[in-house]
Amino acid sequence: MVQRKVPAVVIRRLPMYLRALERLDPKEVPIVSSEDIARMVGTSSGQVRKDLSYFGVFGKHGVGYQVYFLKEELRRILKLDREIKVGLIGAGNLGAALVRYHQKSKDHRPLEIVAVFDIDENKVGKKIADVEIFHMNDLTRKIAELNIRMMILAFPAEGVQAVVDQCIASGVKAFLNFVPVSLKVPEGVKVQTSDVTLELQSLVYYT
Amino acid sequence: MVQRKVPAVVIRRLPMYLRALERLDPKEVPIVSSEDIARMVGTSSGQVRKDLSYFGVFGKHGVGYQVYFLKEELRRILKLDREIKVGLIGAGNLGAALVRYHQKSKDHRPLEIVAVFDIDENKVGKKIADVEIFHMNDLTRKIAELNIRMMILAFPAEGVQAVVDQCIASGVKAFLNFVPVSLKVPEGVKVQTSDVTLELQSLVYYT
Repeated sequence: MVQRKVPAVVIRRLPMYLRALERLDPKEVPIVSSEDIARMVGTSSGQVRKDLSYFGVFGKHGVGYQVYFLKEELRRILKLDREIKVGLIGAGNLGAALVRYHQKSKDHRPLEIVAVFDIDENKVGKKIADVEIFHMNDLTRKIAELNIRMMILAFPAEGVQAVVDQCIASGVKAFLNFVPVSLKVPEGVKVQTSDVTLELQSLVYYT
Repeated sequence: MVQRKVPAVVIRRLPMYLRALERLDPKEVPIVSSEDIARMVGTSSGQVRKDLSYFGVFGKHGVGYQVYFLKEELRRILKLDREIKVGLIGAGNLGAALVRYHQKSKDHRPLEIVAVFDIDENKVGKKIADVEIFHMNDLTRKIAELNIRMMILAFPAEGVQAVVDQCIASGVKAFLNFVPVSLKVPEGVKVQTSDVTLELQSLVYYT
């Protein structure tokens, strides 16, 4: 499928639209306008229309979008129409909070955290929110065995690049990175870094 | 000071540039090029030049930027040239991890988390990484007393809007939101929402 290169900021907004639509009862609200969607997620209707137009999704002028159809389209575009296996490295405070947060979220499917990895022997074999903790020595084997395609990085900064390289060699295609370090990845692999200190620093601009 | 409206994505990149520059020893590296900065943060040199040009910061063609001067400029632009008091609501797993993560970060200054708030009487009076936990009943009073201008939201989703309204009325100007809900805030107040499930969902697109 040939597709225009879509800006990352657009891709990051699509799950918000999907979530808003999933909160609606399709029997009560079969059709929404771009204004409705914009109000639900806190953006402008022009933004919504522009974002969706990247994928050739257009509402009928003066009518809007069919909720059911738009949800299906968004899931297809985001590839959320199949189960995705996710791993997490680092069973500390942050890692445990992330696993619990995600598994508890109403929207967590089809993304399933299937394995947590840590170097601490005392944690290996235990569970966080029903997800088993494995030893880092089993990383490569478990990625292949469980078909893990995304990895969350939530461990102290030492040796991250080597771990990332190992994950990529085993088939991981995307990383959600909570480690305060820049990572080098080849073309075709995506890293999104989430760093509370950086987020706070950028927010100060608005105070 | 009159300033062009700067896209939020640009503001979010500036702290990454600042962090990269702070990792350099100004005695060994007095001058950097946009290529150097781009390589350190994993972006393109054109992006770096464009982002900085929003603020009238230009390197000398063929020479680059003076590290010391550029750091000072970035701090001034981001308003990181003064201490900022931050509060956090929700002393659960996620809240505790965020406080520890931020306070441990080399770059945490000048942003200081000065108070954690929770409704659990058993937690009140205790500390997370030297930050005291106060009762939610003291929220308004403590925001004023400690001069808190930013608030991190890390508690379950019920009643968030009411809490946010209370914070705004007490003088909070920016929120880093980890609660999976859309918030309504008046003009002049900024909310940045961080949601691991949404981030994972947007990453699937790249797998």
